[in-house]
Amino acid sequence: MTAPGLFVSFEGIDGSGKSTQARLLAETLRARDRDVVLTREPGGSPGAEEIRALVLQGDPDRWSAQTELLLFTAARRDHLERTIRPALAAGRIVICDRFADSTRMYQGLSRGDLRPAVDQLHDLMIGTEPDLTFLIDMDPGQGLARAKSRATAEERFEDFGLDLQTRMRAGFLALAREFPDRIRVIDGNRAKAAVAADVLAVLEAELS
Amino acid sequence: MTAPGLFVSFEGIDGSGKSTQARLLAETLRARDRDVVLTREPGGSPGAEEIRALVLQGDPDRWSAQTELLLFTAARRDHLERTIRPALAAGRIVICDRFADSTRMYQGLSRGDLRPAVDQLHDLMIGTEPDLTFLIDMDPGQGLARAKSRATAEERFEDFGLDLQTRMRAGFLALAREFPDRIRVIDGNRAKAAVAADVLAVLEAELS
Ligand SMILES: Nc1ncnc2c1ncn2[C@@H]1O[C@H](COP(=O)(O)OP(=O)(O)OP(=O)(O)O)[C@@H](O)[C@H]1O
Ligand SMILES: Nc1ncnc2c1ncn2[C@@H]1O[C@H](COP(=O)(O)OP(=O)(O)OP(=O)(O)O)[C@@H](O)[C@H]1O
Ligand SMILES: [Mg+2]
Ligand SMILES: [Mg+2]
Repeated sequence: MTAPGLFVSFEGIDGSGKSTQARLLAETLRARDRDVVLTREPGGSPGAEEIRALVLQGDPDRWSAQTELLLFTAARRDHLERTIRPALAAGRIVICDRFADSTRMYQGLSRGDLRPAVDQLHDLMIGTEPDLTFLIDMDPGQGLARAKSRATAEERFEDFGLDLQTRMRAGFLALAREFPDRIRVIDGNRAKAAVAADVLAVLEAELS
Repeated sequence: MTAPGLFVSFEGIDGSGKSTQARLLAETLRARDRDVVLTREPGGSPGAEEIRALVLQGDPDRWSAQTELLLFTAARRDHLERTIRPALAAGRIVICDRFADSTRMYQGLSRGDLRPAVDQLHDLMIGTEPDLTFLIDMDPGQGLARAKSRATAEERFEDFGLDLQTRMRAGFLALAREFPDRIRVIDGNRAKAAVAADVLAVLEAELS
């Protein structure tokens, strides 16, 4: 937690509690006088938020999987350059609600079979990975119920039902095995405070 | 000029007469009952035009060279999928005002040294090249004077002056040597009708 900063991401299926846990971790660290930047993807910088709006608004078939992948990669590049890297260079803790693992899952797995293209684009234009990623693992049915309890204009990625949620959960767990040095699996099937305590304990262990 | 269509692009420095010649060629072919789609980049499909607006409006430093490259590649992918490929599959002649060669020049050469990234992105996400590309070659000073005689909100790419135009001209001529099977150099330092006659003669020779 010293300069040049620490880059933490939260990943997991829809409704697993990523946004909740990212916010709780930011609050806890700030209460301990840590300098925290809480950000999210897609978005996280003014330009990336404009790209997010372009991708997520309108007809779901408006963009092919490949075009969507390019737009999300453009947004990530802007987010990295304008928000994440400057914060890390200033020694801040960056907590990001979704990052490249979400692209590996949603563009790489669910919208086609684009994982090789996802990886090549990442290597070519992004390169950076978080120092630590919390995968909030949970029962797919419970995640879906939670996600549906909210309502936003950008819900189309969450409209594919239990089958997809089940595949995505398995996909995220496979990612955790693919990146064992970076991804920590957290049991999300519990009260928010219990999950948050686990997250904090893992972070402290990593940093000690 | 039979199915599955023919894909022709126009390239060259700013003000060289690409848009003029693309339009004249389309008119001539239509007068001969050819089924022609006249299109342009960046843009050329509804989604790509939205991406074009996002890239070209606002502060010139709004996007880094890398982010801009990703956005233009996203626009090209959409343009290919929604406009160019369907037209070619229907046996139409597609005439495109700028295509990937402009990216090789403007993102690959003028905004950084991104040519390797440009090529890898092209291979990964685009792949397609025109059957025939007309490079309208002309004196950089004359091109600049012509370009400045017009005024649009999107002129920032043209604000870099004679030095850049001179480098770009040399870059385009080098591209013509790199892709000798596809790129034909046309002398653009003449009246519009004389240039158009050359373009038509080359097209007819290629097709005979
Ligand atoms: N541990 C928990 N127990 C019960 N409800 C929870 C828990 N964590 C989050 N929730 C609730 O579930 C819903 C989804 O949580 P949250 O928005 O944090 O998930 P998410 O992973 O960010 O979802 P999305 O993928 O849709 O962004 C919210 O209403 C939140 O308050
Ligand atoms: N052969 C020519 N002789 C004189 N003027 C010309 C000739 N060709 C084009 N022009 C004029 O020069 C200006 C630029 O031409 P045009 O818009 O076709 O160029 P362009 O290559 O498409 O430029 P840009 O790169 O800015 O899109 C226009 O005003 C056009 O009418
Ligand atoms: Mg969320
Ligand atoms: Mg033009």
